[in-house]
Amino acid sequence: MSGMLYGIGLGPGDPELMTLKAYRLISGAEVVAYPALSGGESFARSIAADIISDDTIEVTIHIPMTVERSPAQAAYDQGAADIAGHLDAGRDVVVLCEGDPFFYGTFMYLFARLAGKYETEVVPGVTSVTACAAVAGRPLTARNEMLTIIPGPLDEDTMRVRIAEAEAVVIMKVGRHLEKIRKVLDALGLTENAVYVERASLQSQKVLPLEGAPCDAPYFSMILVTKGQDPWLN
Amino acid sequence: MSGMLYGIGLGPGDPELMTLKAYRLISGAEVVAYPALSGGESFARSIAADIISDDTIEVTIHIPMTVERSPAQAAYDQGAADIAGHLDAGRDVVVLCEGDPFFYGTFMYLFARLAGKYETEVVPGVTSVTACAAVAGRPLTARNEMLTIIPGPLDEDTMRVRIAEAEAVVIMKVGRHLEKIRKVLDALGLTENAVYVERASLQSQKVLPLEGAPCDAPYFSMILVTKGQDPWLN
Repeated sequence: MSGMLYGIGLGPGDPELMTLKAYRLISGAEVVAYPALSGGESFARSIAADIISDDTIEVTIHIPMTVERSPAQAAYDQGAADIAGHLDAGRDVVVLCEGDPFFYGTFMYLFARLAGKYETEVVPGVTSVTACAAVAGRPLTARNEMLTIIPGPLDEDTMRVRIAEAEAVVIMKVGRHLEKIRKVLDALGLTENAVYVERASLQSQKVLPLEGAPCDAPYFSMILVTKGQDPWLN
Repeated sequence: MSGMLYGIGLGPGDPELMTLKAYRLISGAEVVAYPALSGGESFARSIAADIISDDTIEVTIHIPMTVERSPAQAAYDQGAADIAGHLDAGRDVVVLCEGDPFFYGTFMYLFARLAGKYETEVVPGVTSVTACAAVAGRPLTARNEMLTIIPGPLDEDTMRVRIAEAEAVVIMKVGRHLEKIRKVLDALGLTENAVYVERASLQSQKVLPLEGAPCDAPYFSMILVTKGQDPWLN
């Protein structure tokens, strides 16, 4: 009988923000697998490091950092083949994912390759979106408000239109797109409504007004923009 | 010295989807507080029921179900006053919230009343959005895709425009708005892209194509609409 494939969200970074289910499945895992950017540590593995048993087999999927997509695609093909080998041998495999597996997660590339062939369960995790709101002390959405989640790489014109018409906005993956985002928010008169959060829930976390955001914002940073405040809140 | 106020997300319903931090704070709590719709059980409390100690003081905030907002506002005023009494007496208070406290959560009404006066920490939780995607086996967003979260009560015209221009869409709080939402998705030719999820992660969970959604959809139901599929996924 084949093993079972689990895609497990570990939350935004603080190990205490993983779910009880993630804790149970990881600490008892026969095999864990995780992506790592080539040459770097795996962020997902670092969140779970303290609960991975010495007996657990570890599979690292080395994702090359290239603009072209085919090298990364080949890495996922290889990773899926390695995981399939364990599943075929009857071993369950737990794939570690920062945040949530289906929310900008790399797990979906393994899911696309394996879920049709093996029994698969996805365990959701706390996303960086609500973790950022929590540490910033900024409620995201109440009642009938909409929330728009925008990735930083979006082109400037589309970003301006989407933010203009949105109610609450979360801009993910800020990194090197910070200056473009500042420009868009300035043009819309929203700079004072924006808060910058970097590495929410980790010890290195930063929460700053947008004006104070560092020029070298990392990939794992985010900007929250809230427009109106529900008057009922006061 | 005053006690500390915690707003704690419990996740979508399965108690195993609460975070380790939620587990620690609730099982050791001196005082827990939670909203309950008048006459009903508290959903948030039901998620945590097994870990609330017999010694813990419980504060129920009875929220009247009225169209007018002032009765509920008065209930939050009263709840905040009850909680403040415990905080002033030096007792920490843990407020239980289904999902995440700042994502359509009732905690924000207590936060608005108390966070300025008492030390407050918000502990994020797994939202029903990613829990629904997980049980439906539907990745939400990859790479540079946007995600738009729309509450079911939104008027039909605005809903149609927002869904038309969106990439991935989550419609929350479907309930009695199901027929309107069906109509909008039909008009946009998106019915086949839509999946209906009710009470994700609970034993009573349902996952159905939109065509099969029950006419009496509950408040805690959701529709996921994904449009394109990242070709790299295959």
